[in-house]
Amino acid sequence: MRKDKLKIVTIGGGSSYTPELIEGYIKRKNELPIKEIWLVDIEEGREKLNIVGELAKRMVAKEGLDWEVHLTLDRREALKDADFVSTQFRVGLLDARIKDERIPLSHGIIGQETNGAGGMFKAFRTVPVILDIIKDMKELCPNAWLVNFTNPSGMITEAAIKYGGFKKTVGLCNVPIRYIKLCCEVLNEKEENLFFKFAGLNHFHWHRVWDKEGKERTKEVIEKLYHPEKAVEVTGMANIKDLKFNYEQIEDLGILPCSYHRYYYITNDMLEEEIKSFHKNETRAEVVKRTEAELFELYKDPNLNYKPEQLTKRGGTYYSDAACELISSIYNDKRTSMVVSTKNNGAIKDLPYDSIVEISSIITSNGPQPINWGKFDPAPRGMVQIMKAMEETTIKAAVTGNYGTALHAFTINPIVPSGNIAKTLLDEMLVAHKDYLPQFKEKIEKIEK
Amino acid sequence: MRKDKLKIVTIGGGSSYTPELIEGYIKRKNELPIKEIWLVDIEEGREKLNIVGELAKRMVAKEGLDWEVHLTLDRREALKDADFVSTQFRVGLLDARIKDERIPLSHGIIGQETNGAGGMFKAFRTVPVILDIIKDMKELCPNAWLVNFTNPSGMITEAAIKYGGFKKTVGLCNVPIRYIKLCCEVLNEKEENLFFKFAGLNHFHWHRVWDKEGKERTKEVIEKLYHPEKAVEVTGMANIKDLKFNYEQIEDLGILPCSYHRYYYITNDMLEEEIKSFHKNETRAEVVKRTEAELFELYKDPNLNYKPEQLTKRGGTYYSDAACELISSIYNDKRTSMVVSTKNNGAIKDLPYDSIVEISSIITSNGPQPINWGKFDPAPRGMVQIMKAMEETTIKAAVTGNYGTALHAFTINPIVPSGNIAKTLLDEMLVAHKDYLPQFKEKIEKIEK
Amino acid sequence: MRKDKLKIVTIGGGSSYTPELIEGYIKRKNELPIKEIWLVDIEEGREKLNIVGELAKRMVAKEGLDWEVHLTLDRREALKDADFVSTQFRVGLLDARIKDERIPLSHGIIGQETNGAGGMFKAFRTVPVILDIIKDMKELCPNAWLVNFTNPSGMITEAAIKYGGFKKTVGLCNVPIRYIKLCCEVLNEKEENLFFKFAGLNHFHWHRVWDKEGKERTKEVIEKLYHPEKAVEVTGMANIKDLKFNYEQIEDLGILPCSYHRYYYITNDMLEEEIKSFHKNETRAEVVKRTEAELFELYKDPNLNYKPEQLTKRGGTYYSDAACELISSIYNDKRTSMVVSTKNNGAIKDLPYDSIVEISSIITSNGPQPINWGKFDPAPRGMVQIMKAMEETTIKAAVTGNYGTALHAFTINPIVPSGNIAKTLLDEMLVAHKDYLPQFKEKIEKIEK
Amino acid sequence: MRKDKLKIVTIGGGSSYTPELIEGYIKRKNELPIKEIWLVDIEEGREKLNIVGELAKRMVAKEGLDWEVHLTLDRREALKDADFVSTQFRVGLLDARIKDERIPLSHGIIGQETNGAGGMFKAFRTVPVILDIIKDMKELCPNAWLVNFTNPSGMITEAAIKYGGFKKTVGLCNVPIRYIKLCCEVLNEKEENLFFKFAGLNHFHWHRVWDKEGKERTKEVIEKLYHPEKAVEVTGMANIKDLKFNYEQIEDLGILPCSYHRYYYITNDMLEEEIKSFHKNETRAEVVKRTEAELFELYKDPNLNYKPEQLTKRGGTYYSDAACELISSIYNDKRTSMVVSTKNNGAIKDLPYDSIVEISSIITSNGPQPINWGKFDPAPRGMVQIMKAMEETTIKAAVTGNYGTALHAFTINPIVPSGNIAKTLLDEMLVAHKDYLPQFKEKIEKIEK
Repeated sequence: MRKDKLKIVTIGGGSSYTPELIEGYIKRKNELPIKEIWLVDIEEGREKLNIVGELAKRMVAKEGLDWEVHLTLDRREALKDADFVSTQFRVGLLDARIKDERIPLSHGIIGQETNGAGGMFKAFRTVPVILDIIKDMKELCPNAWLVNFTNPSGMITEAAIKYGGFKKTVGLCNVPIRYIKLCCEVLNEKEENLFFKFAGLNHFHWHRVWDKEGKERTKEVIEKLYHPEKAVEVTGMANIKDLKFNYEQIEDLGILPCSYHRYYYITNDMLEEEIKSFHKNETRAEVVKRTEAELFELYKDPNLNYKPEQLTKRGGTYYSDAACELISSIYNDKRTSMVVSTKNNGAIKDLPYDSIVEISSIITSNGPQPINWGKFDPAPRGMVQIMKAMEETTIKAAVTGNYGTALHAFTINPIVPSGNIAKTLLDEMLVAHKDYLPQFKEKIEKIEK
Repeated sequence: MRKDKLKIVTIGGGSSYTPELIEGYIKRKNELPIKEIWLVDIEEGREKLNIVGELAKRMVAKEGLDWEVHLTLDRREALKDADFVSTQFRVGLLDARIKDERIPLSHGIIGQETNGAGGMFKAFRTVPVILDIIKDMKELCPNAWLVNFTNPSGMITEAAIKYGGFKKTVGLCNVPIRYIKLCCEVLNEKEENLFFKFAGLNHFHWHRVWDKEGKERTKEVIEKLYHPEKAVEVTGMANIKDLKFNYEQIEDLGILPCSYHRYYYITNDMLEEEIKSFHKNETRAEVVKRTEAELFELYKDPNLNYKPEQLTKRGGTYYSDAACELISSIYNDKRTSMVVSTKNNGAIKDLPYDSIVEISSIITSNGPQPINWGKFDPAPRGMVQIMKAMEETTIKAAVTGNYGTALHAFTINPIVPSGNIAKTLLDEMLVAHKDYLPQFKEKIEKIEK
Repeated sequence: MRKDKLKIVTIGGGSSYTPELIEGYIKRKNELPIKEIWLVDIEEGREKLNIVGELAKRMVAKEGLDWEVHLTLDRREALKDADFVSTQFRVGLLDARIKDERIPLSHGIIGQETNGAGGMFKAFRTVPVILDIIKDMKELCPNAWLVNFTNPSGMITEAAIKYGGFKKTVGLCNVPIRYIKLCCEVLNEKEENLFFKFAGLNHFHWHRVWDKEGKERTKEVIEKLYHPEKAVEVTGMANIKDLKFNYEQIEDLGILPCSYHRYYYITNDMLEEEIKSFHKNETRAEVVKRTEAELFELYKDPNLNYKPEQLTKRGGTYYSDAACELISSIYNDKRTSMVVSTKNNGAIKDLPYDSIVEISSIITSNGPQPINWGKFDPAPRGMVQIMKAMEETTIKAAVTGNYGTALHAFTINPIVPSGNIAKTLLDEMLVAHKDYLPQFKEKIEKIEK
Repeated sequence: MRKDKLKIVTIGGGSSYTPELIEGYIKRKNELPIKEIWLVDIEEGREKLNIVGELAKRMVAKEGLDWEVHLTLDRREALKDADFVSTQFRVGLLDARIKDERIPLSHGIIGQETNGAGGMFKAFRTVPVILDIIKDMKELCPNAWLVNFTNPSGMITEAAIKYGGFKKTVGLCNVPIRYIKLCCEVLNEKEENLFFKFAGLNHFHWHRVWDKEGKERTKEVIEKLYHPEKAVEVTGMANIKDLKFNYEQIEDLGILPCSYHRYYYITNDMLEEEIKSFHKNETRAEVVKRTEAELFELYKDPNLNYKPEQLTKRGGTYYSDAACELISSIYNDKRTSMVVSTKNNGAIKDLPYDSIVEISSIITSNGPQPINWGKFDPAPRGMVQIMKAMEETTIKAAVTGNYGTALHAFTINPIVPSGNIAKTLLDEMLVAHKDYLPQFKEKIEKIEK
C-alpha cells in the first residue's frame, strides 16, 4: 500500500525560497497527503528559519490544512522516517557566495556560482555536508527520496549518488523551466503543444523543440532569440542583454544553449560586465543578499500569509515549484516529463555511463527515466565532455581534499585561466573559506604560513 | 497547420487483420480526421481484398462516417500524398509460411516464422519488396510515416531505415501488449498502475515492471508465471503450456522474457512439440491458413458490419489496434508509452548505435523517443547481441543475394544447427521460394542443376 | 636492479607437458638466470610428479646447469618468493575430462573440454582452486607473474583477474601458434615475413595475415585451406578432415577461424564424428589418457634425458614453449609479439572493457600490450559476444555456486541444446563431479535425493 | 615482389628541413633502394628549392650514391608512380605564420602555430591544398603512402583520411621523440631499456614510461622534470623555463604532458611571455624566419655537402629523420615502435572511433598498428576530448568555408577567448590571409565592406 501520510523534510528550511515551496505543496494539496513538513536549519540560520517558518505556518493555516509544520535545528529528528527530503542549504550562507564571486573578479576572473571557480568552491564546501546528510538518511530514512536543489546541483547529485551511494537522489534546477517558457513565448505556442528534449549537465545543457506537427522548431527559436536583426522582444528575462550570443556560432551549433553557456561562449563579454558589477558592489551575490534581506522583512509581517510577489525577482523562481512537482510525480507515478539531474546510463552517448547528467526524463514512482538523447555534434560534445571532466575532478577534490586535484580542476575549467594565476586564486579562496573546508585543513595551514 | 484530412494507406489491405484495423480507426474517429482509407493488394490477393474491403466499407457505413474506402491494386495511386502507410503484406502468402515452417521441420529443425530459418526466408522475400515500396514513397509521399507490421518486423524496419533510408519508419508488434496484459492479470493491477520497460529486438525482448509505489514487481511476476509450484492460472494464453521455461534459469535472468524466447531458452522442448504438429499437419502456418479461410467465409456475409469475434484467435490480436494507436499518437502528439521498433541511438548500450531495437518509447509527433534502458546483464546481453548480428547478416544477404552471407546468417542463428545440414536446408528453401527471391536467382539455378 | 636469480614455480608440475617446459627453459638458458624450478602437485599426482620430476632433473643435469629442481606437494613452500608461477593443473585429472566429454555425448551433446558443457564444468572445478592459489600468491609472492595455461585458459584468466584481483596474470594457449605455422606453410613464407593479428577469446579467436609488402593475404589463406577444390595439403594437422568448414560461410566471414570454431560453425558434423568416437571409446580424453600413460612409461626410463618425440602427439605442443617464451619476454622486456589472454581495455571494441580477451600483444616487462583490433563484422561480432557472455555467466556460477546461473550459462551456450535436456545434463554432471564442486554441494545433495 | 627501386616525393621540397631528410635517407641507404628523389615546390619557393635542392644533390654525390634528385614545380610529374610522398609545405610561407602568431597577440591572445588560433588558420589554408594533392595521388600514385609532417599534423592527417579518403596517410611529429630522449636523460637509461606509451592528439599527447624491470617510472620523471626543488638540469631543451608547469597539477595528472600542454595548463604565464616576444618582434615565427634566412645563406655554399649543425636550432629536429624511419619501417616491415598520427579504431576509448589520434604504434608494412591505450583519467580525458572537438570543427570549417563553423571552432578552443573578441580576431585573420582562403571568399568580401 502506498503511504497515505507523508513526512517531507527540507534541509535549509530557513531559505528565502521556502514560501514558494509551501505554495507548491498547497497547489498540490489534493495530490499529496502531507502530514508533516519539517524545516531544518543550523544555528546560524535560526532567525531566518523562524521568520520563514512562521510564514509557512500562516500559509498552511490560511488554506485550512491540518499539516504540521515543524521548525528544528535537529536534523536527525527531522529525517527520522521521512518520505521525501529536499535540500536547499548554502554552506557559509550568502557571504560565502559573495566571496565565490568577488575573489575571482578581484583577479579579473569570472567567479560564477555554479560551474566557475565560485561554483567549484561551493562544491568543496557542500559535498562533505551532503555526504553527512546521506549518512544520516541511510540510517534514519533509507527509503526516502532525496530531492536536491542545492547548487551546484549536478555535482552535488553526482557526489550523493557516486560517493554517497544514495541512489534515490534526484537533482533539480529551474533553468530548463525558464527556457521552456521562453520557447513557448517566442513561438507563441502553449507548453503542451511543444515537445522538448534537453540534455547536458546542470547549468550546461542544450535543448531542441518540436511542435505538434512533428516539425522541429529549434532553428526558428534560435533566430527569434539571437538573430541580430530578427530577434523578438521577450519577457521573462530581466533584459534582452541576457540573451546575447555570437549569432553565427549559435546558428552553427543548431541547438539551443542555456543562459549559463554565455560564460563559455562569450566569456570575455561576460567578464567585462561582471567586472563592472564588481566595482559597483553589484555582483549577483550582493544583489541577492540585499533582495533576501528585503524578502525577510516582508516575511516578518504577521499578516502575510501567501508567497509575496517580490520572491519572483530572487532568481530561483520555479525551483521550489519544480521540487514539489517532482515529489508529486514520484508519489503519484505521474509520468510527467521533467528535466532533472539523474544517472546517464547511456542516454547521452558522449558522457560516461555512470555520470549524472541533466536530461528530459519521464518521472515515475521509480524515479526519473531519461529519454534517450544519443550523440552531440562535435563542438557541443567537446564542451560537455570537458565540463563533465571538470565536475568529476572537482568532486574528487572535494572528497579527498587533495590540493593538486583541486588545482587540476581549476586548470581544466575553460573559464578559469590557468597558470600561476589559478594557483594564486585557489590559495586565496581556500584561505577565505577555511571554516567550511575541513578536508583541506592541512594545506590551508601551509598556505597561511 | 496540422493536416485536417488524412489519407491512410494499408499495403496488404486484403489481409484478414484489416477489420481490426478498421475497428481501430473507428474507435479513434474523434482523434483522427480520416478522409481516405486505401487498401492496396496485388493481383493474387484481389479476391481477399474485395471481400475484406467490402466488410471495411460496411463497418465504416454502419458508423455513419464519410470516410472513403478505396480498394486498389495500384500501389502508386494509393501512395500519392498519403499521410500514413501501414504494411501488413505477406510475400508468397500463407503457402510460403507453410514452407518456412515445414521444410526446416522435415530436417528436424525449428522453422519459426520470425527469427528462425523460416523468418530469415521471410526476410529474404520481404526486404526487396519493402525497399521497392520505399522507392515509391520517397517519390509520392516523402513526408508520410511508414508503420510496418509485416514480419519479421524488426528486420524489415531495419532494412527500411538503414538500406532504404526512410527515417520515418516505425515497426510494431503485438507481443509486448500481450505481456502487459498478462502482467496486469497476475499482479491484479490495472494497466495504468504499472510502469513497464521493454528492451531488446522484435520477438526477442525482455521487460521489467514497477508498481505505483515504485516497487519493482518483476521477480514476483516471474514467480507467478513460471514457478513450478507457485505459478498461477492465466487467461489470455491459449494454455499454460505456452509459458513453460526452466524456472531456475528465468529466476537467474531476473527480467521477464517474451514467448519467443522459448525457441532459444528451451529449444529442444519446443522442437519436440513442433515436430508433433508437423506430423499432424498442424504447424502454426497450417492452422492459421485454415483459420483465415474460415474468417474470409465470415467476412463474405453481406450483413456483417463489425469485426467478428473469431478474428481474436488468429494470433495477431492487438496488432492492428496498436498500429491505429501509433498513428493517432503521432498525429496527435499524444506522448503515449508504446513498445516499438525504432533506432537505438544508444538507448540499449549493448547494441550498435544505428541498430533498430524494440523498446518502450514515448510516441510524439516527431516519432518514437526511446526511454533509456542501459545495459543488460551478461547472459541476456550475449543473446540479444547474437540475435542482432543474425538480423544484420540476414538483411545483408536479403539485399545482396550473397549465398555465403545467407549461409553465415544461418550458421550463427542459435536455433539453426550449423554444418552440412544448414547448407542442405538453405539450398532446399532457396529452391522452394525461388519465385520470390530474384536476388538469389543465379545461385538457385546452380543449385537446381 | 633486475633480479638475477629466478625462482620459477609450476603448479601441476606432474603433468606430461613438463618435459617441454624444461626443454623450453633449457633453450633459453642464456636469457633466464634460473636458480630454482619448483614442480608442485597434489597427493593424487605424487607418482606422476616423481616420474616427470626425475626426468626434468636428468634433462637439467645433461645440460650441465646448476638449476635446483624441487618436487613438492607443499604449494606454499614453493610459492614463497617466486618470480614466475605457471599453472597447468587439472582438477580431477583426466578421469574428470573423460566425464566432461562422455556424459554430454551420452545425451547426444558435444562435450568439448574448453568451451562446451565439458569446458564449463572444468571451469566450475578449476575456478575455486585458482582463486585459492591467488590467495596464497598475494601473501607469499605478490609481485610474481602468474602464467596460466590451465584450461579453459581464458575463463581461468578472467577469474584470476576479475575475481582474484591478481592483475599480473597472463593466459596462454598453443592454438594461435599452430595457426601461425599453418599460414606460413600454405603461403610458403617464413614466420618473420608475415604479420599476424589475432583477436577473440581463448579457443574462439580469428586472425588476419599480411605479408612483407603490406598486402593482406587472409583471403588467399582461406582459399588454400578451405576451398573444396583449391585447398592444398598441409602438414601439422593430424589430417585434412580437421580443417573442413562450409567454405562459402568462411569466405563471407573473410577472416581466419581457429580449429575450435568448428564446434560452432559445423556443430552437427562435429557431433556426428564425436558420437562415433564415443561409441569406440575414443573420445579425445580417452585417447589422451592412453597417450599419457604411454608417455609416463617412457618418462620412467632412467636413461631418458630429453623430451621424447612422442609428446608432440599429445596435442599441447608449443604450449609450454609459449609459456617459456612469455616468461623470457617479460623478464627481458623482449617486446615480442605473442597471442595471449589479457585485459581487453578497449582493444576489441565489441567486448566489455574489463573482459579478458585473447589478442596479439607486444610482451613487455610490464606485461602484454594489446595491439588494437577495433570492430568485428556483425557475424563474428555476435558470436564472440555470446561466447563472452557464456564465459562471464560460467565464471559467476563457478564462484557463487548458483544453480540457476549455471543453468543459464548452459542455456546460452550455442553448442549446448537448451530445455529440459540442459537441466538433465547439468544435474548429471554436477553429481558426477561432486567431489570437486564444493560450491554446489547443497544443490547436488538435493539432486541426489 | 617488393619494389626494388623507390621513387620518393617531397612536397614542399624547398623547405629548410630538406637536408635532414636527405641525411635521413643517406643513413638508411642500405635499407631503402632509392632510385629517385623528387623535391617539389611552387613558384614562390623556386629559389629556396634550387638552393636546398643543389645541397641535396651535393650530399647524395658525396656519398657516391646513384640516386636521382629531381627539382620541379610540376607536382603531377613528380607524383606519377611515386612510392612514398612526404609533405612539409607551408601555404603562405613563413609570412603567414608570422600573421598567425602576431595578429592574435596584438589582441592579447596566444597565436600558437598548431592548435591555437594560428594553427587553426594554418589548417584553413592547408586543408584545401592537401585535398588537392590527394586528388592527384588517387590518380597518379594510388598505392603510395602519404607521410604528412605539414602542421597542424594531426588535423591535416584527419582531413586527408576522413575527407580525402586516402587511407594510407600517416602523420608525424618530432615532439614525442624529444620527450623520449628527455626521459632517457633524466632516468639515465638507454632508450632501448625503456618502454613508452604515448596517446592523445598531435601536440596534445601524454606519455607513460616503464623500465626493463616492468616498473613504471612516470612519477619519477614528473618529479625530476617539474618538482620545484627536486627537478634536475636537462639538456635538449633550450632552457629550463620551457618546462615549467604547476607541479601539484602535474603530480595529480600522474602522466607526462608534452611541451604544448603549457599553452593549456599555464595559459596565462605563456601569454605573458609571448606578449614580451611580440613587442620585441621575437615571436617564434619571426625567429624562425631569421634562422631560415641564415640557413639558406649557408646552404648556398657550393662546398657544403652535409647537413649543417645550425639546422638543429630550427626547432624541427628529428622530424625529417622520423619521416625517413617511418618510410623505412613501412618498406621493410620493421615493426618499430613509433608515435604517429593514425586512425584511433578504439585504441583510445575516450575519442571517436574514426578520429585521427597520435599514439604509440607498431609500424608494419601495412601501416601503423596502435598499441592499445584504454581510458584516460577524467581531467586529461576532458582536455583531449575538447581538443578533438576543436580539431573536428576546424577541419569542417576548412572544408566548408562556413563562417559560423569557424567561429564555433574558435569559441570552443580553450586558449582562444570567446565573445566579441573571438569574432574580431577571426575577421581580422580571414582578411589577412585572404589570398589562401578561397573557401571563405564570400564572407571575407562581406567583412571587407
